[in-house]
Amino acid sequence: MMALPEENAGEAAPDAMAAAEEEAAAAVESVAEETSGKTGGDRPISTILIVIAMQTEALPLVAKFGLAEDADGSVFPKGVPWVRYHGTYKGLHIDLVWPGKDTILGVDSVGTVSSALLTFASIQALKPDLIINAGTAGGFKAKGACIRDVYLPSHVAFHDRRIPIPVFDLYGIGSRQTFSTPNLLKEVNLKVGRLSTGNSLDMSPQDEASILANDATVKDMEGAAVAYVADLLSVPAIFVKAVTDIVDGDKPTAEEFMQNLIAVTAALDHAVTEVVDFINGKSLYDL
Amino acid sequence: MMALPEENAGEAAPDAMAAAEEEAAAAVESVAEETSGKTGGDRPISTILIVIAMQTEALPLVAKFGLAEDADGSVFPKGVPWVRYHGTYKGLHIDLVWPGKDTILGVDSVGTVSSALLTFASIQALKPDLIINAGTAGGFKAKGACIRDVYLPSHVAFHDRRIPIPVFDLYGIGSRQTFSTPNLLKEVNLKVGRLSTGNSLDMSPQDEASILANDATVKDMEGAAVAYVADLLSVPAIFVKAVTDIVDGDKPTAEEFMQNLIAVTAALDHAVTEVVDFINGKSLYDL
Repeated sequence: MMALPEENAGEAAPDAMAAAEEEAAAAVESVAEETSGKTGGDRPISTILIVIAMQTEALPLVAKFGLAEDADGSVFPKGVPWVRYHGTYKGLHIDLVWPGKDTILGVDSVGTVSSALLTFASIQALKPDLIINAGTAGGFKAKGACIRDVYLPSHVAFHDRRIPIPVFDLYGIGSRQTFSTPNLLKEVNLKVGRLSTGNSLDMSPQDEASILANDATVKDMEGAAVAYVADLLSVPAIFVKAVTDIVDGDKPTAEEFMQNLIAVTAALDHAVTEVVDFINGKSLYDL
Repeated sequence: MMALPEENAGEAAPDAMAAAEEEAAAAVESVAEETSGKTGGDRPISTILIVIAMQTEALPLVAKFGLAEDADGSVFPKGVPWVRYHGTYKGLHIDLVWPGKDTILGVDSVGTVSSALLTFASIQALKPDLIINAGTAGGFKAKGACIRDVYLPSHVAFHDRRIPIPVFDLYGIGSRQTFSTPNLLKEVNLKVGRLSTGNSLDMSPQDEASILANDATVKDMEGAAVAYVADLLSVPAIFVKAVTDIVDGDKPTAEEFMQNLIAVTAALDHAVTEVVDFINGKSLYDL
C-alpha cells in the first residue's frame, strides 16, 4: 500500500463522516458482541486459552495452575518459539501460551504480530471456549489508574495504525467491545476502562492523541491484536491488565516499572486466578 | 507489557551498546540468509506464493497469470475474509493470496497483523518454495526514488515498533535481509534499496526518524511482517514494491497517488511478471 504524508491526516474524518463513522463503529461493536455469544452458548465452559506476552508474566500462573510444558513441537509448527503449558485446574482445561523468546535475539516476542500469530495458531489447534489475554500495562492517572490496579477492559483499539482515508481510518483503529461479563465484574474486584494497543513501548505525540481519541485508561502492546484474531475466528475474549507504571506521571517509568514489577505481577496472578475460579463451572452466558 | 514514556527513548542505544547491536544485527542477517537457503535448495522452484495487500493490486496479476479463485473456505479457516487464487503459469504453480475485505467495514485488510496471519496460514496450507510480497509503496526522492520505479528491497525493517530497552529495540526494528537474488537483479530492471514497514499510511516525526535509521528508500505497510513470518517458517521471501507517491515530495500525496495508480499498477504487474518469468525453471540457488 502507498504512503500519505501527515498533512493529509486531518482530512480523514471531516464532520460529514462523523455520523457514518459512529454508525460503523457501533456495527463493529454489535457484531463483536453477537459473534462472541455464538461460541459455547449455555453449556459450561470447559477449555480456556490464556495468552501472555512475557515469560515473567506467564511463569507464576503456570505454577499457580499446576500446568506442564508441552513436549517439543506438539501443537505449533516447526521453527516457531511459541510455548504452550497445559493442565487441568479444578474443572477447567487450561492452555497457557506465550510467544517465546525471539529465536535470534533471545528476548520475549512482544507486540501485535507475534501475539496475533500465536492466538491464531492456538485457536486452530486448541479450540478454546474463551480467551483470556493477561499482562502488565501502562495506566493513565488522568483516567483514574493507579499502580497495581487490575483492569478488565470493556473495549480495545489500536493507537498506532493511522490510515487517514474514510473507513480505512476505522479499520486501522480497530475498536471492538470485549466479551461482556457483568456477573464477573460484580463478583471480582477489577476496574473497568478501555485498552489501547500499539507496538511501541514509548508514546509519541501521535500515539498519545490516538490513545486520547480511544478514551483509553490502559495501554499495552498486544490486546487489540488478540481481540482482532479472536473476533475473526468467533472466540469470545476478555482482557486482564495490571498497571505497572503511570504513563502520564512524573516518575521515570523504567525505574517505576522495576520497582513495581513484583508486586504488580502478584496482583495480576491474583486477579487472573479469581477470574478463572469464577469461570469454573459457568457457561459463557453466566459470565 | 508495560509502557515507557518517550523521554527514556534516548537511553536505549548508548554508545556502549552500538557494537553489541551491530553484532546482533549481523547475526539476524546471517541467520536469515542461511535459513532462506535451506528451503528448496537446487531443485527447480515449483510453487510460489504471491502475497498482496489490496484487491486493486491483486486482480491484474490474477488475470495476467490466468488464476482461478478458490472455492469457499477450501484452505483457510471459517470466518476469515482471506482470498486465494491459484493456477499454473508456464511451469510454475502460483498461489496468489490477499487478506480480503474487512468483514464488517468492507475495506482491504491492510497492515502487518492481517498480512502476517495470511502469510502464516498460507505457508502452512500451501508449502511454497518462495514467497513474493508485491504491492505499491511510498518512495523517498532523497534516496533516489521516482514515481513508477519498482524496487526489489535488499532489507526490510519496521519503523513503528520502538522498544527502548537494549536488545528489545533490535527485536522491534526487526531488520532482516531478504532472500538474495543476484542473477534476477542482473536480468530484470529493478532498483535496489531498503524497505521500511509500519501500520500507518501517514508518517509521524518518530516514524520518519526510524525510517531514516533504517536507511529506507521505500515505505509500505506489510513487508517486514511478511518477512518475519517467512523467516519463522524458513521460507525464502522477496519483495517487489512499486512507487505510487513521493513521501518527501511537495505534491499532496493522495492526489499524486490517484494520478499515478493506474500507471504504477501496470508497472508493478510488468515487474512481477518479469520476476515470475525469470524464476520459471530455476532453482533458488539460480536466483
